[in-house]
Amino acid sequence: MQNINSPSFFIGKGGGELISFGSGQPDLAPPAEAFAVLDNYRSFKYGQVCGLQELREALTPVYEKSQPGQFVITNGASEALDLVLRALYVPGGKILLPKPYYYSYPYNVQFAHLEIDYYELIDGKIVLEELKKKLPDARAILINSPSNPTGTLQDREVLKEIEKMAEELDIYVIADNVYRELVYVGEFYQLAGKKVISIDSFSKTYGMCGYRVGYLHSYDQQLVDKIVEIKTHASMNTNVLAQEMALAALKSPRDYIDHHLQIWSERRDMIYNGMKEMGLDLWQPEGAFYVFPKIENANKAINELYYKYQLIAYDGAWFGEPDRVRFSYALDVEKIQEGLKRLKLYLAEK
Amino acid sequence: MQNINSPSFFIGKGGGELISFGSGQPDLAPPAEAFAVLDNYRSFKYGQVCGLQELREALTPVYEKSQPGQFVITNGASEALDLVLRALYVPGGKILLPKPYYYSYPYNVQFAHLEIDYYELIDGKIVLEELKKKLPDARAILINSPSNPTGTLQDREVLKEIEKMAEELDIYVIADNVYRELVYVGEFYQLAGKKVISIDSFSKTYGMCGYRVGYLHSYDQQLVDKIVEIKTHASMNTNVLAQEMALAALKSPRDYIDHHLQIWSERRDMIYNGMKEMGLDLWQPEGAFYVFPKIENANKAINELYYKYQLIAYDGAWFGEPDRVRFSYALDVEKIQEGLKRLKLYLAEK
Repeated sequence: MQNINSPSFFIGKGGGELISFGSGQPDLAPPAEAFAVLDNYRSFKYGQVCGLQELREALTPVYEKSQPGQFVITNGASEALDLVLRALYVPGGKILLPKPYYYSYPYNVQFAHLEIDYYELIDGKIVLEELKKKLPDARAILINSPSNPTGTLQDREVLKEIEKMAEELDIYVIADNVYRELVYVGEFYQLAGKKVISIDSFSKTYGMCGYRVGYLHSYDQQLVDKIVEIKTHASMNTNVLAQEMALAALKSPRDYIDHHLQIWSERRDMIYNGMKEMGLDLWQPEGAFYVFPKIENANKAINELYYKYQLIAYDGAWFGEPDRVRFSYALDVEKIQEGLKRLKLYLAEK
Repeated sequence: MQNINSPSFFIGKGGGELISFGSGQPDLAPPAEAFAVLDNYRSFKYGQVCGLQELREALTPVYEKSQPGQFVITNGASEALDLVLRALYVPGGKILLPKPYYYSYPYNVQFAHLEIDYYELIDGKIVLEELKKKLPDARAILINSPSNPTGTLQDREVLKEIEKMAEELDIYVIADNVYRELVYVGEFYQLAGKKVISIDSFSKTYGMCGYRVGYLHSYDQQLVDKIVEIKTHASMNTNVLAQEMALAALKSPRDYIDHHLQIWSERRDMIYNGMKEMGLDLWQPEGAFYVFPKIENANKAINELYYKYQLIAYDGAWFGEPDRVRFSYALDVEKIQEGLKRLKLYLAEK
């Protein structure tokens, strides 16, 4: 029995008796309009490195007074963040990350040769006083709201204050907005302003994870040009067909998103209430599709859950919080119920 | 009239009266088998970061005694090189690049925070004596045979000697093999051994540029694991559908490649002979699809060719050779003839 020490242990594992609360992978298919693009598609040539013109045009309504030239279509939000960090590189540059964090963030910073500093979320929320101390030293701060893994949304007033501080201090704000359309409580607030670099994706909103289409937006044209320059040499255009599918998804009726939000809400209520009934200490998700309960000895827990109960969950330590376990509820209600049963059994027997 | 100072000036330019000898973009469509994959394709979930298992299995016959776990499928050869260099990073690490070089190489090295050194090709060929002096200082040497932009193939014996030196000195050899199937004279020699990292692509062989599928192979499992780790955070899996298309292309009858090689040969003869008749000094391409004639004042030439003769060609300076001009012959023979006419006119009138 191998000790499980990273999410990659679980890659390719699933199906059969196994219940996976692991990967943040929607099980809900993309809109039919996206697949309709495949009929008779026959293009094969390079596209523009910054992305399909029509797709960038279709994104302009999302960002006030934006221009197509301010967008870059990327291989998922992952590449968007990678490119942004590489473009922001300065020797000794420090990136402020939230803690808990999406597990890739520290690696992204490290692979861009930048330095990491963390700001602690208290009950999943930003504490402005702490930020005020740390911001002046930073090259950029990363905000992820709704958050993976906490499921929390940051307050509008707090985010507006961060915008202001960033402009005053001339520090970039990287807004990871990939869960913007998955909000149950309150409203998503879109960070804006000349120091904000927004990152978004078609993966979560439209179930297109495998196609790898994300994007970034910034009003700072020099920065966008620098990013396009890096991408020109590091990967060239994002897959042309996938961009057409993303465009079709974006243009599909809004019903798709609304209907899916209902499904996510139902799952959220089931897993949150189920865990509350077991006496677990957790936040009620305001957005995204994760719960992050306190479970002592999380690494032992995820090992036992996997080997004894055939249940996949992620060690909070991978997100910077070793006394919690992350459960993604990107699976249907029957499976969530079965998973909750197993978790209850584990908690009773441990 | 804007002075033309990089290949990106030409992106999106083409058609109409314009004849483009610019981009290295095959005009020949992928095999029908690749497009057949689109019928009824409905997958949408994340794939393995290292790539589709079946595709990596199908590639094992290409590399002697290779295993699927030694391959990583990437967003084109560009991402393969980017990942390899990032994985090879050590402070002050020096990468030996050929000169002339494919224009992305120096950027790739720079964006990986490594240092550049060049080895000069004489008439497009490696000079072992020079390499022997430079190799001991290097972290890795990059070999591109057949070469973009020179169209030359390196000698088998020279490459075998480099393999040997690299093993003795414990230096990596990065073999950019993307033009391996486009060889007119002699035979492609595949660098091999434990220090060799091979990079290849479906873009040139199968006309799939826009789909961005490439790969890398190495017998050094630790290095491959490091590359997969970077890709996990920097872009995740390569587009799942594009990988299926690449697999279908790979399995399609060999006729496709043979037939295309005939087309490329015909074009090569036409452009080489045409330029020879004009008295230009150039190498006869042994592989790939570029000619690289000496033309004085190359930047002035490509500006005049573009603005006065509606002909796109690339300044040799972008490839490290400012007294030459690169012409890609990835276009049909009628256009090549028309382009040659215009070039002749330019040479007569200048």
